[in-house]
Amino acid sequence: MISEKMMKLVGANSAIRVMFEEGRRLAAIHGSENVYDFSLGNPNFPAPPEVNAAIMDIITNEESTLVHGYMSNAGYEDVREAVARSLNSRYGTDFGHGNIIMTVGAAGGMNIILKTLLNPGDEVIVIAPYFVDYGNYVDNYNGKLVVVKADPHTFQPDTDAIEKAVTRRTKAIIINSPNNPTGVIYSEGTIRSLAAVLEAKQKEYGNSIYIISDEPYRELAFDGAEVPWLTKFYKNTIVCYSWSKSLSLPGERIGYLVIPSELDDYETVFAAAVIANRVLGFINAPSLIQRAVARCLDAQVNVAAYDANRQLLFNGLTDAGFECVYPSGGFYIWLKSPVADEKEFVADAKNFNILLVPGSSFAWPGYVRLAYCVSPDMIIRSLPAFKKLAGTYRL
Amino acid sequence: MISEKMMKLVGANSAIRVMFEEGRRLAAIHGSENVYDFSLGNPNFPAPPEVNAAIMDIITNEESTLVHGYMSNAGYEDVREAVARSLNSRYGTDFGHGNIIMTVGAAGGMNIILKTLLNPGDEVIVIAPYFVDYGNYVDNYNGKLVVVKADPHTFQPDTDAIEKAVTRRTKAIIINSPNNPTGVIYSEGTIRSLAAVLEAKQKEYGNSIYIISDEPYRELAFDGAEVPWLTKFYKNTIVCYSWSKSLSLPGERIGYLVIPSELDDYETVFAAAVIANRVLGFINAPSLIQRAVARCLDAQVNVAAYDANRQLLFNGLTDAGFECVYPSGGFYIWLKSPVADEKEFVADAKNFNILLVPGSSFAWPGYVRLAYCVSPDMIIRSLPAFKKLAGTYRL
Repeated sequence: MISEKMMKLVGANSAIRVMFEEGRRLAAIHGSENVYDFSLGNPNFPAPPEVNAAIMDIITNEESTLVHGYMSNAGYEDVREAVARSLNSRYGTDFGHGNIIMTVGAAGGMNIILKTLLNPGDEVIVIAPYFVDYGNYVDNYNGKLVVVKADPHTFQPDTDAIEKAVTRRTKAIIINSPNNPTGVIYSEGTIRSLAAVLEAKQKEYGNSIYIISDEPYRELAFDGAEVPWLTKFYKNTIVCYSWSKSLSLPGERIGYLVIPSELDDYETVFAAAVIANRVLGFINAPSLIQRAVARCLDAQVNVAAYDANRQLLFNGLTDAGFECVYPSGGFYIWLKSPVADEKEFVADAKNFNILLVPGSSFAWPGYVRLAYCVSPDMIIRSLPAFKKLAGTYRL
Repeated sequence: MISEKMMKLVGANSAIRVMFEEGRRLAAIHGSENVYDFSLGNPNFPAPPEVNAAIMDIITNEESTLVHGYMSNAGYEDVREAVARSLNSRYGTDFGHGNIIMTVGAAGGMNIILKTLLNPGDEVIVIAPYFVDYGNYVDNYNGKLVVVKADPHTFQPDTDAIEKAVTRRTKAIIINSPNNPTGVIYSEGTIRSLAAVLEAKQKEYGNSIYIISDEPYRELAFDGAEVPWLTKFYKNTIVCYSWSKSLSLPGERIGYLVIPSELDDYETVFAAAVIANRVLGFINAPSLIQRAVARCLDAQVNVAAYDANRQLLFNGLTDAGFECVYPSGGFYIWLKSPVADEKEFVADAKNFNILLVPGSSFAWPGYVRLAYCVSPDMIIRSLPAFKKLAGTYRL
């Protein structure tokens, strides 16, 4: 009786979420300390203390009808202004509140902008491996997903392949750097090359092709790596941000869209995106937490702790004989399955109470994803299990 | 360059929101104390103190990764269980957490359930006058809106007209009681009659026809009026609730869906709705406020204050000569325009710094809506302006 689209989704529920439920089941049997759950990007590190301090101060000192009430669908003007100023100071940009829409996380922002842009049949390019829900977001608006494979060695976008994939119907390309699942940061060279390809194609077709940049991992970059700020390289860029990772607030659903004034049809796109926020049922980003993050724009989670986890897990896995991409950002390790069918490997790992997500969930079989936003203790406890697992493959 | 659907919406932006912006403009000119803004359902009463006390306690005593972290897409199990128990104690039902999905407000809940149920072309009945975004929500999933007029005297749904409007493609009917914009509570007689019509039609067509009950005004019922709890009258009922009005938290975007176990295809509908919550980009209802409302299930805003406002404004308007529906619930007064074209009346009212929403925005020209969730002072200050406005019509 339900819709056909949803029937398919019920049949093939997100492997990541299934793994999350599986983790709870195994923990009930073996005790949670004996289950090594690397499946979900749910930060194990607390929010920085500034966040709760801000919440406390706001509910104590600001008026209830302001803090908990409606505001413009775009978000509080003072919050948007603070976000714009913070971006300007970091990236030398010139944004104002008219370039910012507060959103229900980056996922909310992506749905808003796709709703804004897509006519049925419009094509949206994604770079495999990619977060599986991009496909669902595009399908919400009856867009057509076009999957282009990343370079299989560097996992940077393959701009030659992208060039071939662009058609007259291409409306947007979604990119995600630092990348989930690979941990790769797209280099400035890649971005320049991508921008050049899109500029040429826009000219060829007389269309606008938008980059939708999904950036929840922006602040998690290691070894001094810089994540290029895309609006400086390509004017038709829309940034989707979330504080889920940078402030460990994934449950709060708080993020923003950046829609630069230089964007083609900026005024219409911005106005439509604000309306889309309303008609999709978000209405506005949650109010109290909007006001709280505006006070925490310079705060961040303990990046050094993520870095320590990264080293610990990467070294442990490679010592055990596994082959992994060394992540330069985000909080995932992308590991090459020792057998071609990585689902078999995931099943074997489960016998050692290790929970992994198969690469097939990211349209890239043969690899698995580990989320290391977990306690270092769990990583340490898991390493003997990984050794045993490797042993079964004679690594 | 944006989508055609959104282009239409940008052209015809919500009159309610336009009025909201207009109010800010007039306030800047005349001073906010000289503008009588009855346009937006943004509660002027603070949240009950229990809410901020709960927030304070939660951030002080509960762990950050729990309070701000991901949970199941359906919401925290303990929160859902608490909501179910609260409903059971009030309505003699037998819900458990498996019947509750925490949502980003009622608007989020409605989008989730429409996404779950609708195939393109499926029909959804609404009762005019109705909240204009119902049409946009249905259109998000390419459903077809079928508008049935309420009884023009009582503003109760006209069940004979509904019977005639149901077809083989009817998937759902959206009802809203206490009603926005009329303030009418649908009587038990109406509900029984509606249920009988739908039962017969389900039998005739061998289909399921769902009632989607949008209930943000449920707790705002006056003079001891009872709002019938629909799942007791019709098993294929899905309730969309929000704490926006009952706890004055409209900015926080917090509500829930009730999906009863007796519903046709309950398990599939529930599973699909949880997935829809994710793929639409909500992911989950905001986490901290989920935990807070679970502790405030017996709290509510000052209903007596709304009641006082209701009397004050209704008496003032009728004294001035206007004809209004006496509201039994919600926080709106539905006023008959003294001229056929109520948009002319709205424009005239603006000359007296009175902001009203035209009935056309609810598919019911000839009436206007006043939201009395405002300060009693503003009502008192507005009455002379209403008298002058009435004078121009020689009422």
